[in-house]
Amino acid sequence: MIVMAAHATQEQVRAVVARIQSLGLSAQVNRGAERTVLGVVGHESESDLDALGLLDGVERVVRVLHDYPLASRDFHPEDRVINLPGGAQLGGPGVLVMAGPCAVESRSQLQAAAEAVAGQGVKVLRGGAFKPRTSPYAFQGLGGDGLKMLRAVGDDLGLAVVTEVLAPEDVELVAGYADLLQVGARNMQNYRLLQACAQVDRPVLLKRGMSATLEEWLQAAEYILAGGNLQVALCERGIRSFEPLVRFSLDITSVPVLKRMTSLPVVVDPSHAAGRYEYVKAIGLAAVAAGADGLLVEVHPNPSEALSDGAQSLNPKAFAELMGGARKVAEAVGRQIT
Amino acid sequence: MIVMAAHATQEQVRAVVARIQSLGLSAQVNRGAERTVLGVVGHESESDLDALGLLDGVERVVRVLHDYPLASRDFHPEDRVINLPGGAQLGGPGVLVMAGPCAVESRSQLQAAAEAVAGQGVKVLRGGAFKPRTSPYAFQGLGGDGLKMLRAVGDDLGLAVVTEVLAPEDVELVAGYADLLQVGARNMQNYRLLQACAQVDRPVLLKRGMSATLEEWLQAAEYILAGGNLQVALCERGIRSFEPLVRFSLDITSVPVLKRMTSLPVVVDPSHAAGRYEYVKAIGLAAVAAGADGLLVEVHPNPSEALSDGAQSLNPKAFAELMGGARKVAEAVGRQIT
Amino acid sequence: MIVMAAHATQEQVRAVVARIQSLGLSAQVNRGAERTVLGVVGHESESDLDALGLLDGVERVVRVLHDYPLASRDFHPEDRVINLPGGAQLGGPGVLVMAGPCAVESRSQLQAAAEAVAGQGVKVLRGGAFKPRTSPYAFQGLGGDGLKMLRAVGDDLGLAVVTEVLAPEDVELVAGYADLLQVGARNMQNYRLLQACAQVDRPVLLKRGMSATLEEWLQAAEYILAGGNLQVALCERGIRSFEPLVRFSLDITSVPVLKRMTSLPVVVDPSHAAGRYEYVKAIGLAAVAAGADGLLVEVHPNPSEALSDGAQSLNPKAFAELMGGARKVAEAVGRQIT
Amino acid sequence: MIVMAAHATQEQVRAVVARIQSLGLSAQVNRGAERTVLGVVGHESESDLDALGLLDGVERVVRVLHDYPLASRDFHPEDRVINLPGGAQLGGPGVLVMAGPCAVESRSQLQAAAEAVAGQGVKVLRGGAFKPRTSPYAFQGLGGDGLKMLRAVGDDLGLAVVTEVLAPEDVELVAGYADLLQVGARNMQNYRLLQACAQVDRPVLLKRGMSATLEEWLQAAEYILAGGNLQVALCERGIRSFEPLVRFSLDITSVPVLKRMTSLPVVVDPSHAAGRYEYVKAIGLAAVAAGADGLLVEVHPNPSEALSDGAQSLNPKAFAELMGGARKVAEAVGRQIT
Repeated sequence: MIVMAAHATQEQVRAVVARIQSLGLSAQVNRGAERTVLGVVGHESESDLDALGLLDGVERVVRVLHDYPLASRDFHPEDRVINLPGGAQLGGPGVLVMAGPCAVESRSQLQAAAEAVAGQGVKVLRGGAFKPRTSPYAFQGLGGDGLKMLRAVGDDLGLAVVTEVLAPEDVELVAGYADLLQVGARNMQNYRLLQACAQVDRPVLLKRGMSATLEEWLQAAEYILAGGNLQVALCERGIRSFEPLVRFSLDITSVPVLKRMTSLPVVVDPSHAAGRYEYVKAIGLAAVAAGADGLLVEVHPNPSEALSDGAQSLNPKAFAELMGGARKVAEAVGRQIT
Repeated sequence: MIVMAAHATQEQVRAVVARIQSLGLSAQVNRGAERTVLGVVGHESESDLDALGLLDGVERVVRVLHDYPLASRDFHPEDRVINLPGGAQLGGPGVLVMAGPCAVESRSQLQAAAEAVAGQGVKVLRGGAFKPRTSPYAFQGLGGDGLKMLRAVGDDLGLAVVTEVLAPEDVELVAGYADLLQVGARNMQNYRLLQACAQVDRPVLLKRGMSATLEEWLQAAEYILAGGNLQVALCERGIRSFEPLVRFSLDITSVPVLKRMTSLPVVVDPSHAAGRYEYVKAIGLAAVAAGADGLLVEVHPNPSEALSDGAQSLNPKAFAELMGGARKVAEAVGRQIT
Repeated sequence: MIVMAAHATQEQVRAVVARIQSLGLSAQVNRGAERTVLGVVGHESESDLDALGLLDGVERVVRVLHDYPLASRDFHPEDRVINLPGGAQLGGPGVLVMAGPCAVESRSQLQAAAEAVAGQGVKVLRGGAFKPRTSPYAFQGLGGDGLKMLRAVGDDLGLAVVTEVLAPEDVELVAGYADLLQVGARNMQNYRLLQACAQVDRPVLLKRGMSATLEEWLQAAEYILAGGNLQVALCERGIRSFEPLVRFSLDITSVPVLKRMTSLPVVVDPSHAAGRYEYVKAIGLAAVAAGADGLLVEVHPNPSEALSDGAQSLNPKAFAELMGGARKVAEAVGRQIT
Repeated sequence: MIVMAAHATQEQVRAVVARIQSLGLSAQVNRGAERTVLGVVGHESESDLDALGLLDGVERVVRVLHDYPLASRDFHPEDRVINLPGGAQLGGPGVLVMAGPCAVESRSQLQAAAEAVAGQGVKVLRGGAFKPRTSPYAFQGLGGDGLKMLRAVGDDLGLAVVTEVLAPEDVELVAGYADLLQVGARNMQNYRLLQACAQVDRPVLLKRGMSATLEEWLQAAEYILAGGNLQVALCERGIRSFEPLVRFSLDITSVPVLKRMTSLPVVVDPSHAAGRYEYVKAIGLAAVAAGADGLLVEVHPNPSEALSDGAQSLNPKAFAELMGGARKVAEAVGRQIT
C-alpha cells in the first residue's frame, strides 16, 4: 500500500503508478476524500518498495504481507513435527521438556544433572559446551570436551542431546555429537550460522533475539528453511524491556501468536527469562497453559556452585516440583508432558 | 551505596562522609583494590541521595532498599485480602474472575453481557462508564448514566461492580455506585486521583502504567495505602514493547515477582494485553497457572458491534470456553475459580 | 486497508464489503496473487475498524491515516507561534530557552536561580510549585505559595513564568499566576486535565509521556486543540528504554519527525532525559542542532542541596556554559537563542 | 554489594561472609536499621556473585563495578586515536565523516557515490560487500567482487575504505581489502567474530546491538581489546524502541555518556537510525553537537534505485547540505569536519 501525501498532485500519482508498472507490478488506485492510496500487487522486493517511498508525493509505504513463506502457516497449514532419537517429539500432541545444566562443567556435574532430569522422565538433555558470554573474562565452556561428555552421558542414560552452536565452522563438529542444534538469542541474526545450520541433517532450535520482532524471528527461521532444512523449532526466552527486576520479560503472548502465524513448534525457556530460580516454576507452568510445545529448563545439581547462570538454575528438588506442576497443567489443557 | 570514582582522593572520601553525617545518617567505608565504596545507613530521602551524587569524586549512587513500606511483603508478610459484596474475595485462596464489556453502551448491551458472565458463575461485573480514549473524537462513555446502569444490572443479578474512575472530582460519585474502583494504566501516576481514592471506603484496583516498573507501581499503590486506604489490588495489563503484533506485551513474570515483593492481590487483564480475542484464552490460562489471584476479562454480547475494544472482547461462547479452561488450570495449581 | 486471510472465500470478501457499505463507507477491492486487500474510504471511527477486523476471513486491519487533524501539518501547513508576555516567542525563528529550578523551594532559592538565568538573557522562568513525585514520601512542592513566589520573582525580573499543573481543579488557580501551563509526562493521557487546559486562555506546554508514541502524543495535544485552545507546544523529555545508565533516552529524532507531522512548536528538556548534569550540555546542544524551537532547562543555585532532581540540575556556571554553546550552535543552524 | 533479606538471621549473615572468604574475597558488614548489607571486595567473577545470590537470607546482589578494564576511561584516561591511511583520524580533534552507499551494487554506482563524497572532502569511503539482510530473499551483496571494487575505487580517489565483515572466516579476506573493519549491530555479540577481528592488524568499528546496553557494548569491545587489537571505535546507530515512526531511536545521550566511560572514539550513524533521508541531516548535526568523533552516512547516486536502504540514503545534493551544516556545527563546538 502506498499512501500519497495530502497534497499530492494527479501527476505525482501517475508517476508512481508508472514506476510500479515498470517494476512488473500492478497498481490499483483508491481515491479517498483526504488521500489517494495505491495498492501494489505482485511479487515486489523490499528494496523496490523502499524506492517507491522516495518518489515525489509519496507519504509512506505500508507493507501488508509477510515475507516468510516456508515458516508461514498460510502456506503450510499442518503443524511441523520434529522427531528426535529415543522417541522424543517436538510439535506433536505432547509437551516436550528438555533439561540440564546451563554449561557442562565436568563429567560428574553433568552426570548428576542428567540423572536428576532422567529420573523425572525427561528424554532430552540440554547442556552448553560452547558458551556465549557477555564478558570475555567469563567461563567460555569446555568446547569439544563438553560435547563428548554430553554424548557419553546422553548415550548412557538414553537421552537425546541439545546443545548450542556458536559459529558456522563448528556446525559439523556439533552435529557430530548433538541430536538438536541450538542457535542462541545473540546469534538469531547471524545469517552465516543459520545458513550453515541449513546444510546439516539435524533439527535446529532457534532462540528469539532479545529484541527481535516475531516477523524478524520467522524471517531468521526462513534462512534455515530456505536453505533446505525443514526441521526448525522456535524458542521464546524473554525480550528486553525496561523492567530492572527481571533479566528478560517473557513474552507469553508470543506463544498463541506464533501458533497462528507459523507451523513450527514453539518452545519456551523459563530459566533465562526469569533470571532467578524462584520464578521459573510459575512461568514454566504459564508457558504450558499458553500452549507451548516444549520447555527448555536449566537444572544444576548444586546451583550455588554453578560456573554460569547459577541464579536461575533449578536444583533437582525444585525441578521435580516444576515437573509435577507441569504435568497437571498440561493435563488441564488436554496435553501430556513427554 | 556510594561508589567513589577510581581516582577519588582521601580528602574527597572524607568530605562525602562528612556530608552523610551532616544529614543525620551514618556511613561505612569499604576500601577495595580499585574503588572505595561507602555504605549509607539511615532513613535517607531520595533528594539527599541525589545530592550526594554531585559531590566531587563520587561516581554513582546505588539505591539498595525500596520505598514502599506499606505495600511491601517484608513489612506485612500476610496476604492482604479484599472482600467484596456478594461473597467475592480477592487475594484469598480462590481466583476471582471479573468480566463484562469494555464500555457500557446501553442497558440492553450491559444486561446481555452481565447475564452471559453471571451464567458462568462470575460474581463481579466490569464495565466502563468513563472511558479514557487516545483520540478526543472517540466514544468517551456514558458517564453517570453508565454508572446507574451498572448498579442496576449488578443489583438485578447479584453481582458486585467494578468500574474505572478518571478524575479526583469523580471519586465520590463513582464510589456511590461501584464496589471496587479501578484506576487505569494511563492514570497510574495521577497522584491526585490516587490520593482521592485513598479517602473513600472502597477498595481500589490499580492497573500498571504501560511502562511503569514494578517498583514505581508499588510506589503508586503506596499513595493509596499511605492515604489510609489499605484495600488495594494490582492489575497487570501488559507493558509497552517493540513488538508490533500485540497491543501490549503481557509481563507474565510480574505475577511471581509481585507475589514475592508485596502482600497485595495480583490480577491479570488478558484482554488489553492481547488486543485480539484469539489470544485471550491462552494468556488468561497462563496467568492462572502463574499464580494470579484474579482475571479481568472483556466480554461483549456482540463484539463486532462494540463501540470500544471490540477486537479484544470475547463473545459469550468464547468466554465460556475461557472459563472452562481456567477452571481446569486453577485446579491444576491447587486453586478454584470464584 | 483490510487484509483478507490467504484462504478467504469470495463470499467472505463480499460480506466484508457489505459491512463496509452499511457503515456509510466505500470499499475498493484489490485482488492479488496471494491475497485480497480492501481499501476503505470515508470517515470511519476506530471502533468501526476494530469491528471489521472480527469478520470471518479478515486477517488484519491496517490504519493508514492519522487522527489529529488540528495538530497536523497537512491541515495547517504554517507553523503555529505562541507569544508570551515580555516578548518571548515559541515556534518562531528564534530558539527559546526556559530555565529555573525543578521545584520552588524558597523565595531566596528561586530568586537566586531566576537572577542566574535572567543574567544569561533568558526570558522565561520555569519552576515547579506542584510536583508529581514517584514516592508519596518525597517533597511534593510548595503549592499555592510556590505559585505566588514564581509570579513575584517573574514580575520582579521581567520574566514570563511556566509551571506545571497537576489536576483539573487547579487549572484556574495556576492560570492565575503562570503565563504558560505545563502538563507533565505522567499526565499526558490525563484527559480531564487536558480538557480543563483547553478552557483557559493560557498556552500549554505538553510533555511527552515516557512511553507515548508520537501519534498518541499528537492525539493528546488534539484534546486541547479540539477543546478550543490552539496555543499548544510539545516538549520531548526522553522515553523509557532498557538502558540503565540514563534516566530516559532522549528521542532526538522526534524533533525532525514532529516538525514534519505537526505545526506545533517543539521544545526539548535535556535535564530530565539526562538525569545527570554532566550530560545536559551535550544533549541540549544536540537538540538545538536538530531543530528544536526551545529548551527547558533545570538550573539551581546549589544543586547538591536541591530538594528534587538535584543530580540533573545545572549550577549557574554550568548553565552559562550551556548558553554559550547553544548560542553558537543556534547560529550554525541559522537561528538565534532568545 | 549483597543485600540481605529483612528477616535474615545472624547465622545466615555469617554463612554468607564465610562463603565470600572461601572465594578469596573479603567482606565488610554494614548493619542498618532495616537490613544488613555486605560489601564484597576483590576480583570476583560473575558466576561467584550469582552463586552468592542463592545463599539463604540473601535478597539480592548489586554489582557496582564494571567489567571492561581495557575499554574503560578509568584505566586509560587518554583518548585512543585511530589513524587510517590517507591521513584520516578517528578520535582526534577532528570529526571524521565516512560516507558511501549502503551496498556496493556495481562499479559505476560505487564510483558515482565515491566521487560525490570525495567531492565534499570526505576521506573514508563506506560500502557494503557482505550484507546482513533480515530476509533470506533480499539482495545479499556482491561479496568478494564488492570488496575489489571498494579497494579499486578507494585507491583511485585516495580514500580509505570501511566495510562490514560478517563471519570469522571472512576476516582475513576483508582485511586484505579494507582499512577499517565494521562489525554490524546484529553481530555485536557474535563473539567468535570479535575474537577473529582481534587477530588482524586492522582497526575495528563496532556498532551497537539494537538493544545492547552501554555496558554490554563495552564488554563486546573488550573481546577485541583483550584479544590484542587496541584499535576499536564504537558506532551508535539507534536502539529499538516502541516508536513505529522511526526505524531505530538514536540514543543521542550515549555520546556524552560513552565519552565519560571509555577512551574509545565514538561515531554516530544517522542513516540507520533515521530510516528516512529527510531526518538524516537533523540528527547528523545533533550528533556533531553532542560530541561525536565521527559520522557514518549512507550516500547513493540515485536512492530511488538502491538495492538496499534506499529510503534512508542521501543523494549527492542532500549529502552536500549535510556536510555544509556539519561544518558549521562542528565549528560551533570547537572542532572541524575532516
